[in-house]
Amino acid sequence: MLSEFEFITKVTSKYGLDRVGDDCAILPKNAETDLLITSDLLVENLDFRLEWTESRRLGHKSLAVSLSDIAAMGGRPTSALLSLGVPEAVWDSGLLEGFYEGWHALAASFAVELVGGDVSRSQNGMFIDSIVLGEVPRGRAILRSGAKPGDGVFVAGALGGAAGGLTLLENGFKIESEMSENETKLLEKQLKPMPQLHVANLLQEQQLATAMIDVSDGLSSDLAHICRASNVGARIIADRLPFETALSALFSREDCLEMALNGGEDFALVFTGDEEKILAAYLPEVTQVGEITANTEIIELIMDGVPRRIPPQGYRHF
Amino acid sequence: MLSEFEFITKVTSKYGLDRVGDDCAILPKNAETDLLITSDLLVENLDFRLEWTESRRLGHKSLAVSLSDIAAMGGRPTSALLSLGVPEAVWDSGLLEGFYEGWHALAASFAVELVGGDVSRSQNGMFIDSIVLGEVPRGRAILRSGAKPGDGVFVAGALGGAAGGLTLLENGFKIESEMSENETKLLEKQLKPMPQLHVANLLQEQQLATAMIDVSDGLSSDLAHICRASNVGARIIADRLPFETALSALFSREDCLEMALNGGEDFALVFTGDEEKILAAYLPEVTQVGEITANTEIIELIMDGVPRRIPPQGYRHF
Repeated sequence: MLSEFEFITKVTSKYGLDRVGDDCAILPKNAETDLLITSDLLVENLDFRLEWTESRRLGHKSLAVSLSDIAAMGGRPTSALLSLGVPEAVWDSGLLEGFYEGWHALAASFAVELVGGDVSRSQNGMFIDSIVLGEVPRGRAILRSGAKPGDGVFVAGALGGAAGGLTLLENGFKIESEMSENETKLLEKQLKPMPQLHVANLLQEQQLATAMIDVSDGLSSDLAHICRASNVGARIIADRLPFETALSALFSREDCLEMALNGGEDFALVFTGDEEKILAAYLPEVTQVGEITANTEIIELIMDGVPRRIPPQGYRHF
Repeated sequence: MLSEFEFITKVTSKYGLDRVGDDCAILPKNAETDLLITSDLLVENLDFRLEWTESRRLGHKSLAVSLSDIAAMGGRPTSALLSLGVPEAVWDSGLLEGFYEGWHALAASFAVELVGGDVSRSQNGMFIDSIVLGEVPRGRAILRSGAKPGDGVFVAGALGGAAGGLTLLENGFKIESEMSENETKLLEKQLKPMPQLHVANLLQEQQLATAMIDVSDGLSSDLAHICRASNVGARIIADRLPFETALSALFSREDCLEMALNGGEDFALVFTGDEEKILAAYLPEVTQVGEITANTEIIELIMDGVPRRIPPQGYRHF
């Protein structure tokens, strides 16, 4: 069976769809501006569980995943469409009221306007298609394909928190459980992630990033996308990875590393660019984690001084 | 339980979403052009049955429903996103290959480019979110709200064919069955509808339509949307309704009327405007079926000279 990635590759190569494959599609808008558009599916029991989250957080997350795609292109979100498939039991439960509240609260904080969408019944399980439009100065969308050997590799935000939260949920933690501050923090990282639009904006204004992607599948997979698109490799230093502090407090170094590399949904940004310029810009929450190499599609992790190759192992559908 | 219509009305009034509620959202693009965007969900066993259709026709129809929304605004489609939720059995069946062929064949015929989307596993049942972008000269999108008393009411295309095809499928007809030319024609109206982009284009160029909508839920429901948005009523002459010819050949006058008024998915266009100008334009496949009145939200059907009120009865989710 083809993986989602293989399937998309097959379709895009067959039909020559060269706009498909970055975090957003880029369409010409006018002389100053390009339009960005992205679509993300969230399917019940694959991407979320109604018994693990609650309505407002689910609404928030549904929008956050797409805002993160706009951030990954160095864009500014402007408007959104929301299509919902709703089973009868969910419709009756009043969940949608809270869902829209959570969605709208995040949208309002970034001045994103809901302009359309669709609502349908679903026979089994809820699903959500989140579509967000954004803008970027013309010709300045930050692609996956611009990384060059010698560029630094940077992370904006912290890693592993969402995977840590997922682990807690899998171990029986509930939102309403009594728990420590660190546990609460990890749960919220999983259930109510924040897109890195602020850093994306700074990178765009100062034109600092040569390539960028958001960490939706795990650092190893998402950095591999940059390496593939840019025809380069990367060397990452394990000790430099910015683990979520609540994660380090609760899990071993080995677990933290595993969750940062292979756990998805952190919605941090990974980007590449000139080390000196980026370090001199003092960007908030930005950490250098390694560098781009000429070893095409090979990602090395340096741990305790020893390099080892890491395969992309993040979450894949199918 | 709220109907989909009531729910959308509630959400839009609560959050002041004045762009939601026409066939497409309208967004400013540049000095000459507005951008249109529409999203349509198709859910297995609600909007289609895999045992009734086949892959290429399903791909075609998934795009056609959204192209029809662009047509209803007097727009020209430019690009599309396609999000698919796919159960494992469907993934294994190879259906997606044919689905994309059908989708792409229709897209190519209108120079629509696939620019993005998402693919996810679905636990139960396939679902499709079809998103299409289009363009319209600035300020000239044809809304539902522009109809005025005295305007003629026109239909572009034929009515009832898709409902006739659905009736055949419900009675056990299959695509591969041996059947008459008329039966084949009705089946194809249901499974492979054609959007009325050509007429929409002519109406736009000549600025002839004051209001427009596509017939997705049945003439009675869709004309009611125009009446509500325009704060007018309408009087329809039963004998003028352009029934699909294959429908008239196979069903009684009464059945034809029922299917034309209350059967959905014809993807004909209903529009209003100056009678003389529109009749003088000799538009292909366009029929005058009545006129707009000042009786707010009241739709009368004149049958054998006798008027009766018709309630909107077309297909509703939930």
